[in-house]
Amino acid sequence: MVQIKDMLVDGTVMRPDGRAADELRPVRITRHWTDAPEGSVLIECGNTRVMCTASFTPTLPRWRRDSGQGWVTAEYAMLPRATSQRTDRESVKGKIGGRTHEISRLIGRCLRGVVDMKALGENQIQIDCDVLQADGGTRTASITGAYVALSDALDWAQQHRHIKDKSKVLKEPVSAVSVGVIDGTPMLDLPYVEDSKAMTDMNVAMTGSGAFIEIQGTAEHRPFDRDELNILLDLASKGNKELQQAQRAALEQA
Amino acid sequence: MVQIKDMLVDGTVMRPDGRAADELRPVRITRHWTDAPEGSVLIECGNTRVMCTASFTPTLPRWRRDSGQGWVTAEYAMLPRATSQRTDRESVKGKIGGRTHEISRLIGRCLRGVVDMKALGENQIQIDCDVLQADGGTRTASITGAYVALSDALDWAQQHRHIKDKSKVLKEPVSAVSVGVIDGTPMLDLPYVEDSKAMTDMNVAMTGSGAFIEIQGTAEHRPFDRDELNILLDLASKGNKELQQAQRAALEQA
Amino acid sequence: MVQIKDMLVDGTVMRPDGRAADELRPVRITRHWTDAPEGSVLIECGNTRVMCTASFTPTLPRWRRDSGQGWVTAEYAMLPRATSQRTDRESVKGKIGGRTHEISRLIGRCLRGVVDMKALGENQIQIDCDVLQADGGTRTASITGAYVALSDALDWAQQHRHIKDKSKVLKEPVSAVSVGVIDGTPMLDLPYVEDSKAMTDMNVAMTGSGAFIEIQGTAEHRPFDRDELNILLDLASKGNKELQQAQRAALEQA
Amino acid sequence: MVQIKDMLVDGTVMRPDGRAADELRPVRITRHWTDAPEGSVLIECGNTRVMCTASFTPTLPRWRRDSGQGWVTAEYAMLPRATSQRTDRESVKGKIGGRTHEISRLIGRCLRGVVDMKALGENQIQIDCDVLQADGGTRTASITGAYVALSDALDWAQQHRHIKDKSKVLKEPVSAVSVGVIDGTPMLDLPYVEDSKAMTDMNVAMTGSGAFIEIQGTAEHRPFDRDELNILLDLASKGNKELQQAQRAALEQA
Amino acid sequence: MVQIKDMLVDGTVMRPDGRAADELRPVRITRHWTDAPEGSVLIECGNTRVMCTASFTPTLPRWRRDSGQGWVTAEYAMLPRATSQRTDRESVKGKIGGRTHEISRLIGRCLRGVVDMKALGENQIQIDCDVLQADGGTRTASITGAYVALSDALDWAQQHRHIKDKSKVLKEPVSAVSVGVIDGTPMLDLPYVEDSKAMTDMNVAMTGSGAFIEIQGTAEHRPFDRDELNILLDLASKGNKELQQAQRAALEQA
Amino acid sequence: MVQIKDMLVDGTVMRPDGRAADELRPVRITRHWTDAPEGSVLIECGNTRVMCTASFTPTLPRWRRDSGQGWVTAEYAMLPRATSQRTDRESVKGKIGGRTHEISRLIGRCLRGVVDMKALGENQIQIDCDVLQADGGTRTASITGAYVALSDALDWAQQHRHIKDKSKVLKEPVSAVSVGVIDGTPMLDLPYVEDSKAMTDMNVAMTGSGAFIEIQGTAEHRPFDRDELNILLDLASKGNKELQQAQRAALEQA
Repeated sequence: MVQIKDMLVDGTVMRPDGRAADELRPVRITRHWTDAPEGSVLIECGNTRVMCTASFTPTLPRWRRDSGQGWVTAEYAMLPRATSQRTDRESVKGKIGGRTHEISRLIGRCLRGVVDMKALGENQIQIDCDVLQADGGTRTASITGAYVALSDALDWAQQHRHIKDKSKVLKEPVSAVSVGVIDGTPMLDLPYVEDSKAMTDMNVAMTGSGAFIEIQGTAEHRPFDRDELNILLDLASKGNKELQQAQRAALEQA
Repeated sequence: MVQIKDMLVDGTVMRPDGRAADELRPVRITRHWTDAPEGSVLIECGNTRVMCTASFTPTLPRWRRDSGQGWVTAEYAMLPRATSQRTDRESVKGKIGGRTHEISRLIGRCLRGVVDMKALGENQIQIDCDVLQADGGTRTASITGAYVALSDALDWAQQHRHIKDKSKVLKEPVSAVSVGVIDGTPMLDLPYVEDSKAMTDMNVAMTGSGAFIEIQGTAEHRPFDRDELNILLDLASKGNKELQQAQRAALEQA
Repeated sequence: MVQIKDMLVDGTVMRPDGRAADELRPVRITRHWTDAPEGSVLIECGNTRVMCTASFTPTLPRWRRDSGQGWVTAEYAMLPRATSQRTDRESVKGKIGGRTHEISRLIGRCLRGVVDMKALGENQIQIDCDVLQADGGTRTASITGAYVALSDALDWAQQHRHIKDKSKVLKEPVSAVSVGVIDGTPMLDLPYVEDSKAMTDMNVAMTGSGAFIEIQGTAEHRPFDRDELNILLDLASKGNKELQQAQRAALEQA
Repeated sequence: MVQIKDMLVDGTVMRPDGRAADELRPVRITRHWTDAPEGSVLIECGNTRVMCTASFTPTLPRWRRDSGQGWVTAEYAMLPRATSQRTDRESVKGKIGGRTHEISRLIGRCLRGVVDMKALGENQIQIDCDVLQADGGTRTASITGAYVALSDALDWAQQHRHIKDKSKVLKEPVSAVSVGVIDGTPMLDLPYVEDSKAMTDMNVAMTGSGAFIEIQGTAEHRPFDRDELNILLDLASKGNKELQQAQRAALEQA
Repeated sequence: MVQIKDMLVDGTVMRPDGRAADELRPVRITRHWTDAPEGSVLIECGNTRVMCTASFTPTLPRWRRDSGQGWVTAEYAMLPRATSQRTDRESVKGKIGGRTHEISRLIGRCLRGVVDMKALGENQIQIDCDVLQADGGTRTASITGAYVALSDALDWAQQHRHIKDKSKVLKEPVSAVSVGVIDGTPMLDLPYVEDSKAMTDMNVAMTGSGAFIEIQGTAEHRPFDRDELNILLDLASKGNKELQQAQRAALEQA
Repeated sequence: MVQIKDMLVDGTVMRPDGRAADELRPVRITRHWTDAPEGSVLIECGNTRVMCTASFTPTLPRWRRDSGQGWVTAEYAMLPRATSQRTDRESVKGKIGGRTHEISRLIGRCLRGVVDMKALGENQIQIDCDVLQADGGTRTASITGAYVALSDALDWAQQHRHIKDKSKVLKEPVSAVSVGVIDGTPMLDLPYVEDSKAMTDMNVAMTGSGAFIEIQGTAEHRPFDRDELNILLDLASKGNKELQQAQRAALEQA
């Protein structure tokens, strides 16, 4: 494992897009991308483009009412031609696939992880992440973008007096990034071409204070050991710090 | 009815966005909006924004095989926060609503109306129109944008030798526009605020030679007579001519 | 286009069933065809046979309650062997097809177009049109028959004091008929054999006063121009007048 | 139990429609009721009216192919206003209810019970029973009517040389009737008003030779003993003999 | 038919598992098989194993509320590898098959047949029968096992004061068994190998007092006459008596 | 974090069931639990009981054919009364929930992670994990039990000559266990009562050689830092080693 670390420091690995192993793809976060939602963000991570909206409603689903607590939920979907081959619509098939369910739930958990439900009060925020173009890392881009949309929606809610103090509701930022081992080399932020040949693949969501909200590591193709795990987590920490800078920069714009 | 015509000529009607009764909203057509599809177009008609993609595949659905003819089909959908209130996803509900079905079929018929299925050969083109932001006229914007995506997909198909001669496959342009009667005044290209109070509402798809592909007029709130129909069709002809200019301009760009 | 008009006057066109181009198929409207519904009509247009029922209920769907207004809705379906080849049941397939949705919505709009929702009060009328035998024009026969069933249901409602004055609720009659261009000749009321080779196909719903409720013209196979449109609308006006006579005759029977 | 038998002989029981306890409702069987199906029958048992069609196709479902044997299957459904309260369509609900499934399967078994699958050869017959008006006994009327439709479809198949010898395919007639115990009195052929208060309810399908194809007795409200069972089966035998006379009479008409 | 009876008495029929024609498979009833349900029973009839649970809830489904009466309902399902070939899950297919519906309804009716709904009061009992291993007779084993689970659930309800007097709620025991004619010989309690070649097949549910709750006889492969029916019912009576002894023995254990 | 470790060593933490913080619940693995499946295992981890079957079929789903590689897939489900409140069946609801999808996919990935698909050849193994009783850790128990069922199914396949050499197909064992932080204390193998109040919750699947196949850590209620992660992974390693001993012991029995 020592070699891998050296290689990273060495920076001699050549990735298809010329990046270093520990380098993020260019990130662009556009707020107010559409007009209707309380929060509306287009996030671009390389060629991956996701539209993230946050819908604030001052009512709760029935099962949550009279709890004195709010709720945050998320739905993820891909447009049919986000991918190089057209994917059939889940609405036409009449059911939601396992991958969609899994990712929707992941996004929801990550955002709930930074929201104080009591401070939110009996209000609901629905996150929608629709992938316009998919080039790897759509679920992590969704989380990173959704945080910004959520922040905007809470500003809206404070202005419209649905919540008292946004700073109490939103405890800290959250972002997510993928890391993986490709041909034995740990790498940060995998595009599709790398993701499809990764032997180990991990999605890591972290808060602004550097703690973990979610770690999902899967090694369907080759198990990974504790040393590799540590390198991957280091890479993820670096990536998430940079993503949170991008979030901050976007949120500071008028 | 004479008065209405005068009023139009007169141009004194005040519309919420300051347009004349016979004036289109600003149209913007962006080609190659995403990278994966053979044709990918973002069309903006005022605040209505639709992503239109055309997916070319050199195979046919089973029922159409060995017919010596191609097929063109279309699916329409709205993202949940395209509207001011969030709309539940049809994938989550597990079924497609009547409105979605109706519009998908309309778009498909309009585009098939300008394609020579024999010249297309045993190939399929799937049109996807996903509304990112809805402010009235989403079905007509879909048709207008989808034509451009279809044209690009056929260029791709000719370059990749799936078809011989695009000019034989695509017989002529098609575009569509809405017209309606609001407070007694016929108007062109209704945004949501007008559409919702239209007593008569008509969607008209026309070819480049000025013929009709589809007329769908509905008067749930007040029946209309032959004179009104004629005025509405005049408005639609004017609008479609201008939309076809916008299509041409977009297609002439490199 | 002059030739077409002459040909119509001339009456020399030979149709498979021996009718003139501007001649309806024989219409038969049987009221009280079954006992349970508030309105129950069997309409026969040539070989097309549709059972139309109108169910009056003094309650509204939730979204419409407390609006002070009533609601009229419609559902259309085909029995499996209405057609020459058996069609799979949509209940067995677990979803409703696009064509069924499209027609159900059309019927609903046409009938709502002649009902005053305030005068109806907080009551609902559900129209069901089930095609027992299909030989073209099933959607237009449904509209024509459903009007009679609706009228009977409103009589029932007045007798049972759910509404005060039927004449205020039902503003005027509505009927519908198909027209189309076959081998260059415009024709009225197409049976299946003509419908399947029509290049242009239009369904026109009109009120008793001769105004339009719905115009749905589609030209998937050959666009049509303004002159053809005008001839088709003339044919439809003639057909609808005769259908409304048949409706009146049926309603005048004890 | 002796008393019950006497009472039947005595004939003093008053039924709502004036029938004796062992008397069928009037039966009317109309063949060739619609034109498209190979067999098309309207059966009326009192106010219960069911349209029964038999669709013959010279192909088999995949699982049955290359077995050298044919297949007979059945689907049952109720139109929404067959009942006094409107029933929601199963196509709209997106799933078939348990009662519908149960009855469809019963009809299929009864008809398969009189068909020689080897003599039928690799052909399929699909039975559709659609209840136009429901007043009790819809499943038994369906079986009785479907037999006649099946017989007509087999005549058609012999004429079109899909089968060699109908008399080898259709082994014998089958009919079905309901019996039940109401207020302690066994009765034949229950209309809705009786069915809904029956303590014991039994549907009995029998062949022309008097043997049983199906017995379905249910006593949700009060268990029944062997003596009652025997009386009910006697009633059912009488009823089925008369129904088979009606079938024969219908089939003997040109 | 005399011969068949003799043969039974004679006992010379050899069944694959060595049983006499009128002999049950070994029955084992295990109470409190799992901890969570109010009643939880594993019933084993030969190789058939069904887990039966009874869930008591002090609320009713909406349609039954304020009726002063309780409700008992049942659901039946097979685990995918209960059978020798894996069966696809109905949850994955997105719909429940006809056989499952039919059996669920049968179980529900049988148990409702021995429950006094007024004495139950406004409480609901949901029976779940999940087949762990299927070797014929799964529906009858479900009924027999569910009765024991129901009894335990009512004891629980009396202890928790949801009902006053269990002995008034549960009127008498109910059990069920299959009988059939194989190669001309009537037999009791058919395992899969016999069931699949039975010409006549009957499921008989009886109460502790020997009355019938349900008789479902089907003769898809060869109709049966009155004499055969009587022999089959004799066999079923014998079987049900023995099953009720097993139920009693199980319930008497602490 | 030092304190936590001490506390563990100290062993002074009192868990509801008296276990030490780093102690597994009693594990029991019963092979050949049912007869039909190629592999059939009942695994009990404390009160959690899961039936795991492995179905071997010498055919592949269509998308995988002619790849020269096999496939392993898994489905997870809960029986309705596995839980203290009855859960509605997903088959009745007509769709599979997100949690079920997520867990099914997790199990499939874990088992694929220890199978050599080329050595498996064009064969499929379907894992079914049905939870009979749920008391926390159902997904990890499913993985641990499914490995044993998979191993048995591969023995069967080798005996029946579907595969050549099981030892090449099954690369190494896999097991899984849950760990979590409760009131600040990291703990191993959480039952429901602990799981529901865990602030951090992690499921860890490991191979026999101590490498990771899956790490799924979620901190919806309180983010966790790197030190906590390391303690949790240590606990998981200890637990998985013991679970693999239990697997080995079970597999060594005749």
